[in-house]
Amino acid sequence: MKLVIGNKNYSSWSLRPWLLMRHAGIDFEEVQVRLFTGSFAAEIAQYSPAGKVPVLVDGDISVWDTLSIVEYLAERFPEKALWPAGRAERAFARSICAEMHAGFTNLRNQLPMNVAAVLPGRGWNVAVQRDVDRIAQIWTDLRARHGDAGPFLFGAFTIADAYFAPVVSRFATYGIHLPDTAKAYADFMLELPAMQEWIAAAREERDFLADDEPYRLAPDRADAIIIHH
Amino acid sequence: MKLVIGNKNYSSWSLRPWLLMRHAGIDFEEVQVRLFTGSFAAEIAQYSPAGKVPVLVDGDISVWDTLSIVEYLAERFPEKALWPAGRAERAFARSICAEMHAGFTNLRNQLPMNVAAVLPGRGWNVAVQRDVDRIAQIWTDLRARHGDAGPFLFGAFTIADAYFAPVVSRFATYGIHLPDTAKAYADFMLELPAMQEWIAAAREERDFLADDEPYRLAPDRADAIIIHH
Ligand SMILES: N[C@@H](CCC(=O)N[C@@H](CS)C(=O)NCC(=O)O)C(=O)O
Ligand SMILES: N[C@@H](CCC(=O)N[C@@H](CS)C(=O)NCC(=O)O)C(=O)O
Repeated sequence: MKLVIGNKNYSSWSLRPWLLMRHAGIDFEEVQVRLFTGSFAAEIAQYSPAGKVPVLVDGDISVWDTLSIVEYLAERFPEKALWPAGRAERAFARSICAEMHAGFTNLRNQLPMNVAAVLPGRGWNVAVQRDVDRIAQIWTDLRARHGDAGPFLFGAFTIADAYFAPVVSRFATYGIHLPDTAKAYADFMLELPAMQEWIAAAREERDFLADDEPYRLAPDRADAIIIHH
Repeated sequence: MKLVIGNKNYSSWSLRPWLLMRHAGIDFEEVQVRLFTGSFAAEIAQYSPAGKVPVLVDGDISVWDTLSIVEYLAERFPEKALWPAGRAERAFARSICAEMHAGFTNLRNQLPMNVAAVLPGRGWNVAVQRDVDRIAQIWTDLRARHGDAGPFLFGAFTIADAYFAPVVSRFATYGIHLPDTAKAYADFMLELPAMQEWIAAAREERDFLADDEPYRLAPDRADAIIIHH
């Protein structure tokens, strides 16, 4: 299996299936295409008709769009229990992932994922706070319900944790204040070995995507490659 | 089972699970909440923590967000074969639905669903055309592959047809020009009895949602109720 991803520093959608597979112990070959470079469109067209990362390639099956990729993996590896087992909990997990897939646009627009950057206070406004509040409510409710069963949202690790991983990264980058239970979950997720591996790789990247950088006029590192869309 | 929906004239998300259940012959009670009215927030809060339509209520399980609702229905009614049976086709169907769920933002913003309105030429621009082209490509490819098996995208009716139903309605409202195969599919979907039932009900509605009406200054009908967000 091949997982085609974008820049680890910026590509929030790529992080989700990557973290899911890595933490769940599903083997894959990683193929990286650099976003917004001149060759991006031609490279990604080899894998997906939708022209975006991530893409999962399994033999002659190409699966694109994050929610479709995770459903495919859940079916393909039933022994990994990637969704919660009970019908009600599975429906709940799918609902919050679908909500994340299409929603939280204020948060996603104002606080773009930027793993290596440190930008406390930037981007915040009341509309962002409404999104933060809703996410904190989801995490807090789930931890109250499943705290005894393990440290993840549904006790054991599921797709839902992978789906919120980019939000965890954003909250760290932008120094978002969270209520205690939500903060404890975010801190736990940040320390997850698979997450630390992604973060370390993101810090090594040199691309500075000007269009994904509303708050930095120039890169912090001297060897950066500045890319305009 | 209860399906909570918004205004039939405007709520593209509501149309998807409604059409899916109606055409597939899954019984449900319909509960309508009128979008953007003063009581909307309080009414929808009874059903969903995310505060949006559609919501499916099955006993004490609440399922929100369209993609989660359709996955729930596919699991709950396996005999209806709501997803295609083969792994590759099922992955393809999920990929185009997930793509629709989060993408095509130019089309969705510029051509909001408005079942009863006749607005040929309005809203079109080149970015919209790119979305139209991608959708026409998806439909054309699928019809070429499955034309022998039946009139729907995958031959038999699946979630994918329900997912594209609001697009079919938009193409009609805004008079979007389509290549032949795509046009034949759109025409066929418009005539589907469940679709005709929805359209007829939408035409009976009196609410004029000013925020969803970028192209009409005032309602066409004299008994309309004008609602501002
Ligand atoms: N809904 C898609 C979104 C994917 C997406 O927007 N990917 C971005 C990078 S995070 C991308 O490939 N952008 C390149 C482009 O649009 O040209 C998914 O969940 O996979
Ligand atoms: N991603 C959601 C979108 C639902 C949505 O945006 N629904 C709109 C009506 S079509 C709504 O309830 N809006 C009311 C509001 O946001 O206050 C889904 O697929 O169900």
